[in-house]
This record gives sequence, structure tokens and C-alpha cells, in this order.
Amino acid sequence: MMLKTHDGGKLTKDQVGQTVVLNGWVQGWRDFGGILFIDLRDRSGIVQIVFNPDFSGSALELGSRARNEYVLAVKGKVVERDAETYNPNLATGEIEVQVEEVEIVNTAKTPPFPIEDGVEVDESLRLKYRYLDLRRPEMQKTLWLRSKATKVFRDFLDDNGFIDVETPILTLSTPEGARDYLVPSRVHPGEFFALPQSPQLFKQLLMVGGLERYYQVARCFRDEDLRADRQPEFTQVDIETSFLSQEQLLAMMEELMARLFRETIGAEIPTPFQRLTYHDAIHKYGSDKPDLRFGLEIEDVTDIVKSSDVKVFASVAGAGGVVKALNAKGCASWSRKELDDLQPFAARYGGKGIAWITVKDGEWKGPIVKFFKPEEIAALTERLGVEEGDLLCFSADKLKTAADVMGNLRLKVGKDLGLIDNSKYKFLWVVDFPLLGWDEEGKRWVAEHHPFTRPREEDLPLFDTDPGAIRAQAYDIVLNGYEVGGGSMRIYRRDVQEKMFQALGFSLEEAKEKFGFFMDAFEYGTPPHGGIAFGLDRLVMLLTGRTNLRETIAFPKTASATDLLSDAPSAVTERQLEDLHIRLSAKAIAAQAKAAAPSDNTDAAEPAAQS
Amino acid sequence: MMLKTHDGGKLTKDQVGQTVVLNGWVQGWRDFGGILFIDLRDRSGIVQIVFNPDFSGSALELGSRARNEYVLAVKGKVVERDAETYNPNLATGEIEVQVEEVEIVNTAKTPPFPIEDGVEVDESLRLKYRYLDLRRPEMQKTLWLRSKATKVFRDFLDDNGFIDVETPILTLSTPEGARDYLVPSRVHPGEFFALPQSPQLFKQLLMVGGLERYYQVARCFRDEDLRADRQPEFTQVDIETSFLSQEQLLAMMEELMARLFRETIGAEIPTPFQRLTYHDAIHKYGSDKPDLRFGLEIEDVTDIVKSSDVKVFASVAGAGGVVKALNAKGCASWSRKELDDLQPFAARYGGKGIAWITVKDGEWKGPIVKFFKPEEIAALTERLGVEEGDLLCFSADKLKTAADVMGNLRLKVGKDLGLIDNSKYKFLWVVDFPLLGWDEEGKRWVAEHHPFTRPREEDLPLFDTDPGAIRAQAYDIVLNGYEVGGGSMRIYRRDVQEKMFQALGFSLEEAKEKFGFFMDAFEYGTPPHGGIAFGLDRLVMLLTGRTNLRETIAFPKTASATDLLSDAPSAVTERQLEDLHIRLSAKAIAAQAKAAAPSDNTDAAEPAAQS
Repeated sequence: MMLKTHDGGKLTKDQVGQTVVLNGWVQGWRDFGGILFIDLRDRSGIVQIVFNPDFSGSALELGSRARNEYVLAVKGKVVERDAETYNPNLATGEIEVQVEEVEIVNTAKTPPFPIEDGVEVDESLRLKYRYLDLRRPEMQKTLWLRSKATKVFRDFLDDNGFIDVETPILTLSTPEGARDYLVPSRVHPGEFFALPQSPQLFKQLLMVGGLERYYQVARCFRDEDLRADRQPEFTQVDIETSFLSQEQLLAMMEELMARLFRETIGAEIPTPFQRLTYHDAIHKYGSDKPDLRFGLEIEDVTDIVKSSDVKVFASVAGAGGVVKALNAKGCASWSRKELDDLQPFAARYGGKGIAWITVKDGEWKGPIVKFFKPEEIAALTERLGVEEGDLLCFSADKLKTAADVMGNLRLKVGKDLGLIDNSKYKFLWVVDFPLLGWDEEGKRWVAEHHPFTRPREEDLPLFDTDPGAIRAQAYDIVLNGYEVGGGSMRIYRRDVQEKMFQALGFSLEEAKEKFGFFMDAFEYGTPPHGGIAFGLDRLVMLLTGRTNLRETIAFPKTASATDLLSDAPSAVTERQLEDLHIRLSAKAIAAQAKAAAPSDNTDAAEPAAQS
Repeated sequence: MMLKTHDGGKLTKDQVGQTVVLNGWVQGWRDFGGILFIDLRDRSGIVQIVFNPDFSGSALELGSRARNEYVLAVKGKVVERDAETYNPNLATGEIEVQVEEVEIVNTAKTPPFPIEDGVEVDESLRLKYRYLDLRRPEMQKTLWLRSKATKVFRDFLDDNGFIDVETPILTLSTPEGARDYLVPSRVHPGEFFALPQSPQLFKQLLMVGGLERYYQVARCFRDEDLRADRQPEFTQVDIETSFLSQEQLLAMMEELMARLFRETIGAEIPTPFQRLTYHDAIHKYGSDKPDLRFGLEIEDVTDIVKSSDVKVFASVAGAGGVVKALNAKGCASWSRKELDDLQPFAARYGGKGIAWITVKDGEWKGPIVKFFKPEEIAALTERLGVEEGDLLCFSADKLKTAADVMGNLRLKVGKDLGLIDNSKYKFLWVVDFPLLGWDEEGKRWVAEHHPFTRPREEDLPLFDTDPGAIRAQAYDIVLNGYEVGGGSMRIYRRDVQEKMFQALGFSLEEAKEKFGFFMDAFEYGTPPHGGIAFGLDRLVMLLTGRTNLRETIAFPKTASATDLLSDAPSAVTERQLEDLHIRLSAKAIAAQAKAAAPSDNTDAAEPAAQS
């Protein structure tokens, strides 16, 4: 066949007069009085090619057999179009190619959906025919941006002395954390590898190994129930460093983000990023990943209302809970229905309800107003900056719940009021996460991050007095309300590690049993180290303005962890199971038998992917 | 702690007079009359730091507690050494650092082996303590070279318009090829994902998807019995292109290899590479991956000896076999034992033996000489260029066996005679592999590469007359006798695909059943495409002059697919198995019970890794 000399979508007036060979797909065709126009698409874009008896000869007849998505090879001359036929919607709109020779390289069935952007297509159909979906300009653009973003990450880290190291995918199952994907061993009957939830142990071992600066664009796996922003396999840019302070690391990562956004989408991200402690994030924004593209801060009014006659406020405050308030500026005009909807809204986040007050015509209105004393109203007015037209919302609960309810209400109000500028990229570090959390069920302290997370130096004495108040040297990087990365400095001192284990309720011996080879490694001169991991899928989603992680992945899985393209997972042969020394459970056998019955094909009944 | 301002190993006379902070590990220490010298190592190298009562004060006492592999932070002044104490073995040998402050950041137990190159250490010990092994300069250098090599691959491919796309690790099990690693699905009882043996299907689908040029540094998995040059998980640089001819692709890949060798080890690789057809490689070198750093070509002498009185020659020739000969120049001096050893040598490669003739004092000697007629001797003399002192070796067998025996003999003789220049990098393309091979057992044609490999255009008529003679558009890239990559152009025309399936003995309908979604994809306008994959582990092995793949991998597995560091694979909990709807086989349960018995720890009995 004739092989392309040019990318069709890149032809401009500069090539006028040249004879070119183009290869591509038929995007569309039309016949105007014996002259055939075909839009030929390749990955670079679309160019118009023209078949005319005057210069095409027998190519016209052959060309006219082409249909959408046929693959053509054409040879022809680039000519400028008549000015009045310029197509401003096409990068190549000022030229066209006069076809002299054509080959129909391949034919195509009619695709199940049009190969163009902005068409409503069921996502499950798109995933089943992903190879056609990928031809759409939007998907190509997204994958190119992803490729570019990965390259920027790598370039920055290469420039900063990081080494790219591959860590194993067939690794050890650890009882902690999320559910592992397991891989039965053929050589070792009854034993299993696990797919890594992250390269955490290995990257720390690389620091023990003296590599000092490591990165990897790492595939990670979690066998959890999926949501729109989760995939069973996902990609993180995994980073670990030795001999850097937290400040040095965060500053370097800010530079990295700035370069990423500059070189992929041309956005200038100011540094340094804003920082919020976990405490302030929860208290002011009701979230550990607040969207700071708008204000609307939440206030704590427990002190004001704790002795009010609003019984629920007083009782919650008396039981150690909090009363959080949000002033939804200008929302006094909400309808009764909108106000009523606040109750199910609160319930969605585990709250018992939202109390509200409207401020209209200088008057406070609402079911709870009558229970406030004048001085409480005055204090609330000051604390919340109450003005005419405001809607005051209150949640009284345990801190976590009240914060969650108010944090989500804040987001809703922010969106409703159009306070969110979608062109803005607002980065934020959330720092000083608590090191330990109290497990009500187990009646013990558990590591909030993991048991190797380093506490803040000045909080070490709290191990003996108030473990819950110890702040970890852990940090999350938040963008527009999404957590796009996170990490921590790690413990490297044996005395601190022992204190940590004590707090978690086990001895050094028990810890060794639990963490085995990893603890051994730490006895041979561990350097101070710490790191971070960025969620590549989510960053690409934000960079491309998408709202669904699946759009950023070439071959994603559905919410039920199925690949609609290949229909994986699938049944395997008895022989394969035997080789791996496993058998199916009774439930699995029943499911298999059901699937094999032709009248009840569970694959076909697979629910569509959720967007 | 004091954080490093400089990499210790990079200090030179340029920094003399500066006060620096260094962080690193104690490589060694010695006390000369109250003055303490410590070699401090970080990833950049080693620098000597000096503790002297004159300038170190109390730091001397603290420093003298340091032992090997302790982590230190020191502050001090860079000074030039006295010229007579210059250490030419050290990059930093002209300076030292006078310590003013020191912190013992961490202590270390005595490592199980010295942290330096060139020490004999059992490989299983190195793998168990890989985090210490990685501190050795040689391992750091290898990992850095690997990181750099990966970067050069990426840079070249980025520069040439390739897009980096990640394909799934959780994918569909296919009955063809090597044994799959399987991953039970929790959501779909009785179903399994497979880890990919290569991204073959996905990369071809990306071409159907119009991406035109794809690459990925891809992790691949094969559950096969391992050898020194195999790992259960390995990395390939996976490449696929559309609208390129085989010639264009190979030329581009030659440029890629030239850049790789230039930018990693400074070696200049001349292009274009030599090409050999599969036929010539087998006939002249007895291998489809010949080492062309030396000559010693094998000759076919079947025509000369077929009617000789050497019965085995005549009978093999008569039965369609071949007689291959190698002239081991100057080896007539081999001892009787060496000549006798040729028989077990042949047996190792499936041969029945090697007949030999020595040429000494102008006379041919050996058991078979008497059976030759003078004209046969004359013909052999000419064909083999026989001279005084030569050793002529013959193998009579089916082509495959005779070639294998002679090919391996050629390698042995080449090594013995010192004909191989280890500083040489001799690249080679082996092309024109056969498309089909005859399966004696199944009495049918099978695809030598895979059923989507494109035959040479001019060989298409052979489908009807001589399928075994069809040459595939498949190619391997060979370096110094190692296959470092391979690939093929793929079938994109339906008529060719149908002919291929016919040859393999199944109808288009059967093919669709067998290859499912992949066949569907090919009906929607498939572009002509083809690709290649490079074995990264093996390339790095050759770039670093290693002979063992495990040396090129940070955390490799042993020959029994065990990670000696983490002891993966391991037993898992009943709960985990239940979640995945699987049970252990009786054999696995017995193995587990045995492993749990403390007196018979099979883990500890794990055979050492083979090198």
C-alpha cells in the first residue's frame, strides 16, 4: 500500500503544491454533482480530500465505494481552497487534497455509534467498543494529555535526581489495609502472592537501601467496591526521599505540580500552596479535602448555643459534641421545599437534621428562633456575620458528623450560588493529621495513616499523656476538593517506633511478628525518609475537566470490576485450577453452572457502567 | 537533625573552605593516635571525614561510637588533604571534611555481608537482605543504568510521536501461549482475571483505535519454570505502529538502539544492522539468535557426503536429514578426552554424536576418514577451507538437531579460541521467520508467532501449495547471541486472515469463537500495523555486562518464584479465600499442614537462588 508521507490533520497552506500520501479513516463523505468529498481522519485531525473526474481518473470510482471508517491510502496534490469555501472549523480548513490515486486499505462495518465528540452514547456501549471510542478526538486528547502528564512527572523527577525503580507486582499479602487481589502460586501449593495496594514497603526499603530519591509510575490494586472515582487497578506516581525535611519535600512537590499544570494545560499555579491543618480543615470547611475555590466558612457556635433553650444543641454540647453553623449568604429566599430537603440531605451524611433560620425583612424566622435569648442572637449575628437575606444552617452532632454535614452543605450552597470558578486550580496542603485514632469497637488506638508514620517531634511527650492529640508528619495535597496525593515522613528512630507500637498496644516482639522482614530492615541504619504518592488517574481527570476516572483510562473496568471489552474476568479450565492447587467454592460452582445455562447469560445482564 | 547541603561523594577541591552538612552511612572507620577517620558513604560515593580534638571538640567522642552502617549527619569544613595523602582510588580523594558537629542519626547491627563490591556472598543471602545489597556501588550503578535506559527508550519514543498508554494488568485468560497467572474475582464467583503475558491484544486494539504510535514500559507475567534468564514478572518496552512498513519500523528501532547504547554506556552502534534470514541463521550459525561477534560459519556438506561410505551420513541424507560441518580452525591439537567429550556435548542438544577429523602433518585422521573417497575429501577441503591443524566436526541429523548441535559447538569453539570480543556489541536482525510450523502430534499447521502475524505478500500463493514455506513478516533483534526483542507486522486484510485460519484448520466462525472480541474489532477499519517488544531486563543485563537477569532487578524472585526478602508467596486466611470463592486443593492443604509443623519449615529449606 501507499504509506503516509504526512499527517493529514497537520497540512496547511505551507504544503500547497506538494504531492502527499495520506492514510486515514473516512470520517464522512458527500457527493456534489459527481464530485466526491471525503473527510479523512488520522490521529492528527481531519483533512478534506476531493475526487474529481478532472484529476482523479479511475480513483473517483474506487473512492466512491468508501464508507465511514474505511481505511484509505490516497496520493494527491495539496491545493488551496477557494476563499469562500474555507472551513474555519477545521485546522486544515484552508486547503484540500486533490486525489490522484486511492487504495481502499480496509473496509468497516457501520460503527455502533458515531466517531465524534459530543454524541450521547451509553457508556457500556462505549466500553464494549472501546477501540472505536478511542478514535473520538476527545478520547485521543485525553490519552495524549495523560501521556504528556506522565512525561512531565518523569522529567521533573529525573531533573531532581530521582531514580525510577520498578517494584514487584507479585508481592506479599498483608493483613492490614484494603482487601488484596490474590494470585495462587503454582510452585508453592496453598500459597498466594498479592497484588500491591501500593509499593509502600518496597519504597521504604529502597531508602534503607541508600537510593535516597526514588520514583515509580506504579500500578496499584485494591479489591474494594468501586465507585465512579475508583478503579480496581489504578496508577500512582510514587515518590520517596531520604534526608529531606517535610518542608523541603512539600516545596519540591509544589514545583512539580506547577510544572505539571504549566506543561500540560498552560495553567500557572502560584506557589507556595496554602496550608491548612487537619483541625482547621475539618472545623472551617467540614472536610479534610476542602474545595477552597470559594469561601463560605463554617463556624463553631457550640459556645454560644450550649446553654440555649434549643434542647438538641444543649444536649449535644453537653455530651461533648459540637454545633456547627453555616451562613448561606443570600439564601433566605429558599423555598419551603428546599428547606425541607435539608433534612434528607443531612441524613445522607449521617446527620440527624439541619436546623435553619432565615433572615428576612430584618427578622429571624424558623422553628428554633423562639428558643434563642437576645444575647445568643447577638452573638450569632456577630460570629456568622448575619445580614438581611441570609440563611443560617446548624448541625449539632459529634464533630465528625456535624463537620461532614456542614461541609457537604457548604459545597452544595457554593455550587448553587455559582461561587465556584471552574477555570481555577486551587491547591492546598492539609497537614498535621492525627497520628492515632480511637477504635471504638476494639477499644484501642489505631494508626490513622500507618504504624510507620512519623509523629511531630514536639508531640512525642503526648504518647504518655494524650495519644489522640499527637500530630503526624502526614500531609495530603488537595486540588479543588479532590485529594490528589498524600504521604508522610516515616519513623526511623527505634525509640519512637517503640513508643508507637506501645501506643498501638503491642510489644516490639509482636510488631516483629506482624511486620516481619520490614522491621528487620530497619535495624541496619535506616535514614530519615518520607514520601508521597499522587493519584495519576485523578490528576488527569482534573487536568482534562472530566468527572469520571474511566474517561482517563484506555481500558477501564466497570463498577462491577468487569472489562466490557474482553468480558474479563472469565471462567477458566479445570486444568488451570489444578495447576494452581485451588478449587472453586460451592457458591462459585453454582454461579458457573448458572452462567453456562444459555437462557440466563449473566454476562449480558451485566449492569451498565455508572457514570 | 542536620540535613545534607551536599552530596558527599561529589565534593572536590572546588568546595575547599566551605562548611557543608553531609548525611550518609559509615563505610569504615579507623583511629590513628586519637584522630578518627570515617569513610562516609552516600549514593554519590564516599568522602573521608576527620575527627580531631583540635577542631572537633566533643564531636570526636560521639563520632568514635559510630560503627559500620551507622547513619551520621556531620557538619564540617572541606579542606584539601596533604598531597602525600591524596587517595587516587576515591573521586573525593584530594579533600576531606573536618568535622565540627556530628549526630548519630541511626545505629546499625553488623550487616550479614560487607557493603562493597567484589565480595563473594551467597546470592540467597543477598536477596534476603536486598536492602543492604542495594547499598553496594555495583547494584546502585546497575539500577541507575536501568533507570537511565528506560528514560532513553521513553525520550526516543516521545521524540518520535509515540503515545505512552497503560494497558490493564487484570485481564482475560487466553488458552494460547504460556501458563497464565490467575487472579480470582470476588465480585464474579468462579471467574478469574489473568495477568498479561504481554499487552499484545491491547496494543493491537490501540492501533484499531487510531492511536498510530503506541509504547509502554509494560510489566508482563509468565507462570513458567524459571531459569537464570527468566523471571515470573518481567518488563518489556512494548511498541506498536500503524502505517509503517517493516523496513521503516526496523530502521527506526535501529536508531533507538543506537541512541540507547550511546546515552547509557557511550557505545557507538553502527547502523543499519546486519540482517540474516531465519534460513541463513539456522544454516550458517545453527541458531536463530547467533552471536556474530565471530565467524566460524557452519557449512552444509550433505551433497558431498550423501553417497559416501559413512553409513550414518548416507542414511540421514537419504531420509531427508542434513550433514552439517564446522571447521574448528587450529583445534587439531585437542586431546583425546576433548574429542571424546564431543559425544556427550552432542547429546545435550539432542544429537546422536559428532564425527570428527583432525588434520595433522598433512594427514586426515579420525574414525571416519577411511570411508571417504578422494573426491569427497577434495570437495570437503574446498567447502570447509581445510588447512593444516584444523579439526572438522560433523553432525548428521534432522536439520533442527544438526543445527542446534553445530551452533552450540560453534559457540564453544569460539569461546575456547578466544574469538569473542567482549567489548563488542553486535546487533543483528533475524527476519523471514516461517509463518507456520508443522505440529507432528496434532498433524496440523500451527502459527509459529501468533495467528495474526502477517505473511510476506509474495508468499501468499503458497497457502495453497506449500504452507510451510510461507515467510512471516516477523523479526527478532539479536545482540551478541541474545534475543533482545522481537515482533511482527500484523494481518489487517480479511482475505489474508481467512487464509491463515484455513491453514490453521479452522473456519472464520471457529476463529471468532476462539478470539472473540479481538476478531470483532478487526471488522471496523483496521489499519496496517505492526510492532515490536524489547526485553528491558535482558538489555540492561547486556548493557551492564551481567550474566544474570536478577542483577538487573531491584527485588527479583528466585528460580522457584519466591521473594526471599518478604517470603512471598505465603499462606492467606480462610476469610480471604472465602471472599474469593475458592478453596485449597487437597495437595495444597497437605502442603500447608506440613509448612505449619515447626520442625519442617519448608520456607527455610528453600533452595538458594541459582546464578
